[in-house]
Amino acid sequence: MQTPPDSVGFVAPMKLAFEDALTLRSGVMLPRYELMVETYGELNAAKSNAVLVCHALSGHHHVAGYYRNQERSEGWWENLVGPGRPLDTRKFFVIGVNNLGGCHGSTGPGAINPQTGRRYGADFPVVTVQDWVITQARLADRLGIDSFAAVIGGSLGGMQALQWSIDFPERVRHVLAIAAAPRLSAENIGFNEVARQAILSDPDFHGGHFYEHNVVPTRGLRLARMLGHMTYLSDDLMRAKFGRDLRGGDAYKFGYDVEFEIESYLRYQGDKFAGYFDANTYLLMTRALDYFDPAQDYAGDLEAAFRRARAKFFIAAFTSDWRFSPARSKEIVRALVANRRDVSFAEIASVEGHDSFLLPIPEYHALLSTYFRGIVI
Amino acid sequence: MQTPPDSVGFVAPMKLAFEDALTLRSGVMLPRYELMVETYGELNAAKSNAVLVCHALSGHHHVAGYYRNQERSEGWWENLVGPGRPLDTRKFFVIGVNNLGGCHGSTGPGAINPQTGRRYGADFPVVTVQDWVITQARLADRLGIDSFAAVIGGSLGGMQALQWSIDFPERVRHVLAIAAAPRLSAENIGFNEVARQAILSDPDFHGGHFYEHNVVPTRGLRLARMLGHMTYLSDDLMRAKFGRDLRGGDAYKFGYDVEFEIESYLRYQGDKFAGYFDANTYLLMTRALDYFDPAQDYAGDLEAAFRRARAKFFIAAFTSDWRFSPARSKEIVRALVANRRDVSFAEIASVEGHDSFLLPIPEYHALLSTYFRGIVI
Repeated sequence: MQTPPDSVGFVAPMKLAFEDALTLRSGVMLPRYELMVETYGELNAAKSNAVLVCHALSGHHHVAGYYRNQERSEGWWENLVGPGRPLDTRKFFVIGVNNLGGCHGSTGPGAINPQTGRRYGADFPVVTVQDWVITQARLADRLGIDSFAAVIGGSLGGMQALQWSIDFPERVRHVLAIAAAPRLSAENIGFNEVARQAILSDPDFHGGHFYEHNVVPTRGLRLARMLGHMTYLSDDLMRAKFGRDLRGGDAYKFGYDVEFEIESYLRYQGDKFAGYFDANTYLLMTRALDYFDPAQDYAGDLEAAFRRARAKFFIAAFTSDWRFSPARSKEIVRALVANRRDVSFAEIASVEGHDSFLLPIPEYHALLSTYFRGIVI
Repeated sequence: MQTPPDSVGFVAPMKLAFEDALTLRSGVMLPRYELMVETYGELNAAKSNAVLVCHALSGHHHVAGYYRNQERSEGWWENLVGPGRPLDTRKFFVIGVNNLGGCHGSTGPGAINPQTGRRYGADFPVVTVQDWVITQARLADRLGIDSFAAVIGGSLGGMQALQWSIDFPERVRHVLAIAAAPRLSAENIGFNEVARQAILSDPDFHGGHFYEHNVVPTRGLRLARMLGHMTYLSDDLMRAKFGRDLRGGDAYKFGYDVEFEIESYLRYQGDKFAGYFDANTYLLMTRALDYFDPAQDYAGDLEAAFRRARAKFFIAAFTSDWRFSPARSKEIVRALVANRRDVSFAEIASVEGHDSFLLPIPEYHALLSTYFRGIVI
């Protein structure tokens, strides 16, 4: 197998152990933890060209490149990162990390609790965006990076990027928050809650200790993912992609098996996800979304929350994204402008809904290319 | 207990048996069936003042009035129907019917299959909007009603009203379809499918024969209803009603128990529904929604589908309804106008989302009052 010339090519993750205890926002103390990390490009001598890529709900450290001898192994933001791509690895040293609590090798609910010798399961503490930012800052310490040229992310990843500007204002020069929101709405939380209840009420969840029962709450995870996809796509996209097309034949079968193409798509996505994602991590990631609210410590005043920020900002949203609509991004922009921050804002026309942030939409990638080119390293 | 003076007061349902076999759209034949019915007001001598009220997904025959010695027993459209109310029972004879396949006394999955002596369960055939209209026409025959002054419904009920105008053009003089659509979009079907999968994958569903196992798939029904509520409400309403308010205290509890008010609301609604609604009926009703597509027999041409219609139409939609948005109602209006039908269309400002059709929104009720007053009986 050959990798494309503008790909970072074959990559391999590394696992870094952090032996200093970490007290989480919840008050729970983790004595130690490990993070799975990938890097692309070279850190320059001044260590001034590092870009941290933060992942969303189901993402991980494998942002770009391919794994040897593994089919369809490209990173989740492969179209963004590489030599000559918008996040150009000839200029930048790019870091992907699987967040604490994740299920792709970093310490999370599926890991062994050193205090008990058993898997954490449901005892793994709830982790917040603020906690992640601290672990990412420790990762930067480990790599000798005083200040990131940029922290970038979409959706929940964008929230981490925003939190960086508040919690470590001197350590991040550019923040790119795409398809994000300054906090979840009741509707956002509601959809998360239905997904969580699907998992929590699955008899195979066993209160989060399903590992010990040698089962996986696939029913719940599958439903959670199906519902997730409903909120990632747009009505228009589904109309264009699936419409009322029937799966096989042109007559109704009058039953509850797959009838419409949209049903087939959702079941496929649900089944695939349930085959590899950890149910406890799904709960944890959705709760981190719910809890994200940088204004909370400032009596709900987002402008006050951003008062410490020193970074320059790139905020982007997509017209068809109803999960975190452009209106939500504008809330961020207004709070930043009120603080006289340097903000670029783009509302990008797309039909792909929330998923747009992952796609190589020409206008979107052109804007990112221009922005990254302008970053002084 | 006293009932309000503009209520129809205490009412009682009646069960009507239909002994003529009914061949459904699916090809399945029901040898006999029963329908639960309520009526309010008096049928006039000319039998020209009858109004059929069609119910939506979780509705039934108990449209208006109260049951004696039963708390909170008012009908689901109590605010609409009564002496002096928009659908004035001093003028009209109003009929409510629990649809075939329902779970409120009409023959449905929970009924005994006379051919086996056991409950139908999953063997109850899928019923379509067209099938319902036929059963409603037979009900009209039974009551001696040649022609309805009006057929009215919201959501799935509105779809039945529309189907009436096509299938029995000489038997309905006015059709009122509120918060409806001419067919479901892929997004609509997708949400139905997630809800169905929640039920179908509940271990207590037992392939639809849970009755024989003395269990009920409450987990699946609960999730289905929670998701339903997410699509009935609007983002704005949830923001206004729940926001990010925490349930008890003002600090995060860092867990997966109820944290936000919206979670509490959804769980409450889900639990309540799972306590009384039949899982097989839920599947059936959502499938009837999916299958509704009067244009299907006319190569997708809605205008052609309405060519036979003779009724006058009242079409209404609500600005905050994203399940069946005003744009979907306008598709109906355009097809009717192209057929030179007499159409009143109202796009009503509301924040309550799809649920608006059930609420006594002043502008909405004023329009309905005026429309019903104008109907010649």
